[in-house]
Amino acid sequence: MKFGGTSVGDIARIKNVARRVKAEVDRGNEVAVVVSAMSGVTNQLVAYCNDMASMYDQREYDAVVATGEQVTSGLLAIGLQELGIKARSWAGWQIPIISDDAHGKARIIDIKGDNILAMMAKGHVAVVAGFQGIGPEDRVSTLGRGGSDTTAVAVAAALKADRCDIYTDVDGVYTTDPRIVKSAKKLDKVSYEEMLEMASLGAKVLQTRSVEMAMKHHVRVQVLSSFEDKPGTLICDEDEIVEQALVSGIAYSRDEAKVTLVGVEDQPGIAAGIFGPLAAANINVDMIVQNTSHDGTTDVTVTTSRTELEHALKVVKDNMKVPYRSIDTDKAVVKVSVIGVGMRSHAGVAQTMFQALADKKINIHVISTSEIKVSVLISEEYTELALRALHTAYGLDAA
Amino acid sequence: MKFGGTSVGDIARIKNVARRVKAEVDRGNEVAVVVSAMSGVTNQLVAYCNDMASMYDQREYDAVVATGEQVTSGLLAIGLQELGIKARSWAGWQIPIISDDAHGKARIIDIKGDNILAMMAKGHVAVVAGFQGIGPEDRVSTLGRGGSDTTAVAVAAALKADRCDIYTDVDGVYTTDPRIVKSAKKLDKVSYEEMLEMASLGAKVLQTRSVEMAMKHHVRVQVLSSFEDKPGTLICDEDEIVEQALVSGIAYSRDEAKVTLVGVEDQPGIAAGIFGPLAAANINVDMIVQNTSHDGTTDVTVTTSRTELEHALKVVKDNMKVPYRSIDTDKAVVKVSVIGVGMRSHAGVAQTMFQALADKKINIHVISTSEIKVSVLISEEYTELALRALHTAYGLDAA
Repeated sequence: MKFGGTSVGDIARIKNVARRVKAEVDRGNEVAVVVSAMSGVTNQLVAYCNDMASMYDQREYDAVVATGEQVTSGLLAIGLQELGIKARSWAGWQIPIISDDAHGKARIIDIKGDNILAMMAKGHVAVVAGFQGIGPEDRVSTLGRGGSDTTAVAVAAALKADRCDIYTDVDGVYTTDPRIVKSAKKLDKVSYEEMLEMASLGAKVLQTRSVEMAMKHHVRVQVLSSFEDKPGTLICDEDEIVEQALVSGIAYSRDEAKVTLVGVEDQPGIAAGIFGPLAAANINVDMIVQNTSHDGTTDVTVTTSRTELEHALKVVKDNMKVPYRSIDTDKAVVKVSVIGVGMRSHAGVAQTMFQALADKKINIHVISTSEIKVSVLISEEYTELALRALHTAYGLDAA
Repeated sequence: MKFGGTSVGDIARIKNVARRVKAEVDRGNEVAVVVSAMSGVTNQLVAYCNDMASMYDQREYDAVVATGEQVTSGLLAIGLQELGIKARSWAGWQIPIISDDAHGKARIIDIKGDNILAMMAKGHVAVVAGFQGIGPEDRVSTLGRGGSDTTAVAVAAALKADRCDIYTDVDGVYTTDPRIVKSAKKLDKVSYEEMLEMASLGAKVLQTRSVEMAMKHHVRVQVLSSFEDKPGTLICDEDEIVEQALVSGIAYSRDEAKVTLVGVEDQPGIAAGIFGPLAAANINVDMIVQNTSHDGTTDVTVTTSRTELEHALKVVKDNMKVPYRSIDTDKAVVKVSVIGVGMRSHAGVAQTMFQALADKKINIHVISTSEIKVSVLISEEYTELALRALHTAYGLDAA
């Protein structure tokens, strides 16, 4: 069971979490719990570090920031004991959760499950501080924002858990954002691959890394509400999903910006000349389009995240060796994606998308596809219209 | 160097501490720093534990509360690096500071200085989280309130430091409370034995346990101001103090209450009948007086701390087997003590005290003495008058 910052936001909520855990124990289950810091605490600790110095030692940042989860884990252990449940808290170094030395965004290398399993065998609930590990030289490490999801999946894998339940402020994974499309349905099950695309395409339910880890170790993950007592969405192997829909969900991301180099002289090495410097500057380029050349010049469009736009522009301008006419940028764009493992074996999925958008007179700027998704870049003002049209076109509306 | 909660109360003050440490490094010294939690943080964490449960697992309390010092140590390490000083933070378990299993008030069993010394040899300042250690089964322990002083002395002993400087919100140890007696003088030096008496008799400069540890390991401790740059008071072996005054200081404690059993039938075992149950209930009894009996009955007076008065009364009433007439209590009392190693070899020190109080018409309720101190219990309203009279009587007034 994993509970995020909102679910443990104050003492009353931590007590509520203790009751949820007790209910699971009362059902005869052995339970390990992973907790985040109380909401707001991590931000406060990060602000302290920023106030101390503009450039700080990531190892010290980790030592400071990791304390938030340690506080919650101790408090939840106390809350469980108060309900008559044996429990003990575990900091990352006590388990240990061994990470690499990429402080601030460390990756888990290994979890030794023996200590926890020995205590669980004695009937103790293990309350694990999320988001942290122990790196080289006994230094505390953190896994980066949202890392508690990763901790939960990694602990579940180490304990060979039957299931990893991630409690959050939404009650599951929906076919699309229910705040925009009223007829959006909660999915009972979704495959790892689809969840991975949804996570990386803007659905904020789970951190991408945690889904990757779940897929790798075949950990069955359930996303469910920490405030209501009802089943959520199970993320599992495709095999476990009997009725696989053609399209499982429609995701969107507003954190997009488009950069177009207009009238680039058409010669070999254009793409390398643009993307080499961007990669060297560690700027993530998402979609790329280069049209067939006419009159000896071509247009090249790339998309990146809005926060990186200024940086990306500067890099392109400083490094572009090939002559070009001008640069256009557009921040008022959104990426809409349809996702479904079913499309592997079905043609026409993309065409349904293009037709549905065309019917609503929505212009497509850029298209990109993968084996199980089709993404298009459109003007931001059409977001809601596009989501609703696609949701209907793929037959996802609730009956 | 040890800095308490007020000295590291916010980011600006932690930066100030970093500058103080840098100045010491610039003088060519190798430095280890011990820090408390930012003021208010520990209280907040304790309140969380209390809110979670009325009776909590002390081990979980420790896991929660110890995080406060970990935050400060990381932040100070960042602050030092910002000033160009190599530094790293050390949680209790990283050093390790090994403690017993008396969680919440653990005692240090051993400090392994090797890890810290190796880093210091490479030119790193060691920033140690105070107040904590690691107990059995890799559990985090805390040393009890004020434990950071003890950490500082213990670390100084382990590193064989030349001096342990305890920075605080007072600039040294005074002959008496300067808020009450304007002519109080700061002592240049005071012996361990005297400091120990002063600490246990109400002077709040240093925690008793830290002075005991300093005495045992011959650690020279300096108490000085974290806000001003001037020498404080050195606590050291008697031998190092050339001109030893007869009386070094006058302490007082308001946390006193008096319980008198009136008209107790005079028979063997009265004292045992009273103190046995109090000891069994873990109530600390300080002063004890039993007058010579007349008319077959006697009065027995004990003093205890005000917070324990109600509990003590109940224990006495429930357990007193010997017949007695009534119980009187008095919470409006204060204990005033004169302290000085010089009185070992000089008669008349107590008499000077009694005469000075008599001259001011101050009635003495109870007297107790030890080798280097004389304590009297008087009515609280005379506190200031008594302190000033005694300060003058022992020639302590500043010239």
